[in-house]
Amino acid sequence: MSTEKLPARSENFSEWYNQVVLRAELADYAPVRGCMVIRPYGWALWENIQQALDRRFKETGHVNAAFPLFIPMSFLEKEKEHVEGFSPELAVVTVGGGETLEEPLVVRPTSETIIGYMYSKWIRSYRDLPVLINQWGNVVRWEMRTRLFLRTLEFYWQEGHTAHATEEEALEETLRMLNVYTDFAYNEAAIPVIPGRKSETEKFAGAVQSYTIEAMMGDTRALQSGTSHFLGQNFARAFDIQYLDRNNQLQYCWTTSWGLSTRFIGAIIMTHGDDQGLILPPRLAPIQIVIVPIYRSEAEQSQVMAVATQLHKQLSTRFRVKVDDRSEVTPGFKFNDWELRGVPLRIEIGPKDVEKGVLTVARRDIPGKAGKITIHPNNLEAQFAQLLDDIHHALLKRATQFRDEHIFDPKDYEELKEVVQHGWAFSWWCGSAECEAKVKEDTKATTRCIPLEQPGGEGRCIVCGQRATQKVYFARAY
Amino acid sequence: MSTEKLPARSENFSEWYNQVVLRAELADYAPVRGCMVIRPYGWALWENIQQALDRRFKETGHVNAAFPLFIPMSFLEKEKEHVEGFSPELAVVTVGGGETLEEPLVVRPTSETIIGYMYSKWIRSYRDLPVLINQWGNVVRWEMRTRLFLRTLEFYWQEGHTAHATEEEALEETLRMLNVYTDFAYNEAAIPVIPGRKSETEKFAGAVQSYTIEAMMGDTRALQSGTSHFLGQNFARAFDIQYLDRNNQLQYCWTTSWGLSTRFIGAIIMTHGDDQGLILPPRLAPIQIVIVPIYRSEAEQSQVMAVATQLHKQLSTRFRVKVDDRSEVTPGFKFNDWELRGVPLRIEIGPKDVEKGVLTVARRDIPGKAGKITIHPNNLEAQFAQLLDDIHHALLKRATQFRDEHIFDPKDYEELKEVVQHGWAFSWWCGSAECEAKVKEDTKATTRCIPLEQPGGEGRCIVCGQRATQKVYFARAY
Ligand SMILES: [Zn+2]
Ligand SMILES: [Zn+2]
Repeated sequence: MSTEKLPARSENFSEWYNQVVLRAELADYAPVRGCMVIRPYGWALWENIQQALDRRFKETGHVNAAFPLFIPMSFLEKEKEHVEGFSPELAVVTVGGGETLEEPLVVRPTSETIIGYMYSKWIRSYRDLPVLINQWGNVVRWEMRTRLFLRTLEFYWQEGHTAHATEEEALEETLRMLNVYTDFAYNEAAIPVIPGRKSETEKFAGAVQSYTIEAMMGDTRALQSGTSHFLGQNFARAFDIQYLDRNNQLQYCWTTSWGLSTRFIGAIIMTHGDDQGLILPPRLAPIQIVIVPIYRSEAEQSQVMAVATQLHKQLSTRFRVKVDDRSEVTPGFKFNDWELRGVPLRIEIGPKDVEKGVLTVARRDIPGKAGKITIHPNNLEAQFAQLLDDIHHALLKRATQFRDEHIFDPKDYEELKEVVQHGWAFSWWCGSAECEAKVKEDTKATTRCIPLEQPGGEGRCIVCGQRATQKVYFARAY
Repeated sequence: MSTEKLPARSENFSEWYNQVVLRAELADYAPVRGCMVIRPYGWALWENIQQALDRRFKETGHVNAAFPLFIPMSFLEKEKEHVEGFSPELAVVTVGGGETLEEPLVVRPTSETIIGYMYSKWIRSYRDLPVLINQWGNVVRWEMRTRLFLRTLEFYWQEGHTAHATEEEALEETLRMLNVYTDFAYNEAAIPVIPGRKSETEKFAGAVQSYTIEAMMGDTRALQSGTSHFLGQNFARAFDIQYLDRNNQLQYCWTTSWGLSTRFIGAIIMTHGDDQGLILPPRLAPIQIVIVPIYRSEAEQSQVMAVATQLHKQLSTRFRVKVDDRSEVTPGFKFNDWELRGVPLRIEIGPKDVEKGVLTVARRDIPGKAGKITIHPNNLEAQFAQLLDDIHHALLKRATQFRDEHIFDPKDYEELKEVVQHGWAFSWWCGSAECEAKVKEDTKATTRCIPLEQPGGEGRCIVCGQRATQKVYFARAY
């Protein structure tokens, strides 16, 4: 950690973000343009995200598998919208084993096509359905403007791909997984995302309908944090995924796909962080509690370290705990370091605490003295579990409040243009691509989602004044 | 599952292997030459392997991270032996985002170079050492002759990369991880691997010394199942990985790397399988216990299913259990199916068992009546834990016996040529590449490893008759 102060979040959010990622050692730039190295602290965070999601996927009946990294170029061309959407972003292998390949191979930007091909081989009858498979892996999209975690050439994600006998089942699955993402965001990451449907313009290339969870970052920009797509029969027709139904009739399947990526780490950073650095939601934090021993003499050191070691042992049975026993830096340096790295709780143990038989605990989400608590060592596990829970709820509450304070209901188009500079507009929209495009041109704000929760009734499109039956969020987005 | 019989293992081992992989639905061929799809059952096996290894890595102080898929071509060229070893096997990205790249990017065949580059950025002082990082991911090697799991263009693995202050520490790490692999093979996979050192000819391109665990497959061929490399200062010099020591002197680090891949699934299949199909080692099996209900009438069905469901619930708290409630196939079909898929224990529940209040259990490792046990339902969890443990030890014992029966100590070169046709030769070897090459030319057998356990003393090289201080295994290998 460098001892330099971070840029203020309010002054230069973008530079604050970059510095936090690098100095908290979440990630680093790779020597290949637009690629990142996810460092152990960042990867441990991703592993916790993976576990929290994977448990939910398995509870909803999904299994994991692994499909190839390389896709024949001709596969992408089988779904017209899909290839149009992805062809500008492809990395292409043209040489293998020293020879020029007859057919170039695309490094997968997403796997609908190759998985569709395999499903057409595996699925024969209605008894084989539904197929509910997820894959954890890496994908590549040749992006021009990149940011660590938010937009990188290679990124890590999970992609679920399911095949169903009926349209209804596939639509149910699409919304089930949107709910899984929403539940995960609220209950693991303390991020109050808004689930909704994407506009035609913003949907996934090849989907019939795309759903999204949208999160508001600390600078009020929106971040698409997970998506779930109803693919209709588009890929089933392109790849001939058919099954014999109960009446022995050949039918096309209905498919879905859904994904959440390392981008979500960006959402965590930009939702909760402050001028001191990261604030990690306790349920996902790689280190939930850090113990910092404080001593001046060797006698004090052995006294304090004995307590720290015993405490570490006791708390490790239930929490992710670390003792910072570095001797080359001061306690003050360590405090700053673990604040930068966003550890939810810090225990300071000095000779006085040992003498009094108490623990001084500092909450990362409440800076300074206000966040310091003295704890008596009875029923420690329950007390720490409660504290971590309190922090989770405090973070969620704060983020929800911030979000709601920055969602506006502009009375006319002029006001919309103004509010999207420092928040989101929640407005009636006629649904036309023209009105969407006009907003984008005038303000850079795009439609983020048509939320599942609607006020009902109808209104007038904020742009053209025509009759509108749905409200949409307009916002500038990452 | 097809109802056709598998080819006999003794008649066509190679075809038996392919059929088992496909019909047990471990993997399938991908539509890209030499690539595979790992199906949910195979991936669940790999996830269990990952967990068993990852726990051991973390216990020995390692952390996980993620380095990029793409490596600039120039990086590989920095270590002479490394590039010579890998350049014939590279997949190369030459086009990105529609443009020809200035410098082609190699899809990583292994990550010493790019990780070395990052380590040179991160490591400054002796306080930063050791760096103990592992990565779970995919790599690509453009192989000409491929086999599912054993040799595929893309495969999954873990690669550990560590940097140390001293040669001694790096050597210790190399052997520590070899021991981790050995322990894993014996205690999770029930495979009696032989740990040892690779010859100069057989070592990793760029290593000073390579260590390996070698396993004997059911056709007596050897399979290199995991490797651990002492890289000396080769990569530290190539990538300038230096640190300031306690005396403020700049020193090169000493590095290691070690890996185990989805190839290990091939080792499991070919070590334990029989003519009925897979036999999965219980500690790694995705399904440890399958429950097959047997009934003829609806009354029987509801009676039997009630017991099956209750049993599933009870055993699932401790084991990986599945109830096969398919109604479209017969119990006999199910028995064959789960035998093919290698589930260690099968519980058959019919009306008579329900009436008597007992369970009929069949052990996969002991075919037919000999493997059938009647169990009384007191202390069920302990009984099943014991049974699974017994199977683990029985598999290990059988594999060890098979291995030892097929290791020979030929009295002369003529006998060596004969024994490597149906086993391994364990012979004195002078250490010269010429003698190694002669054996390979005459018999296709290569040196597999110079085992850590040596008889001591000395002998005469089995090939040239010169003085020899070490014994080596010669075998035909996958
Ligand atoms: Zn309008
Ligand atoms: Zn010799």
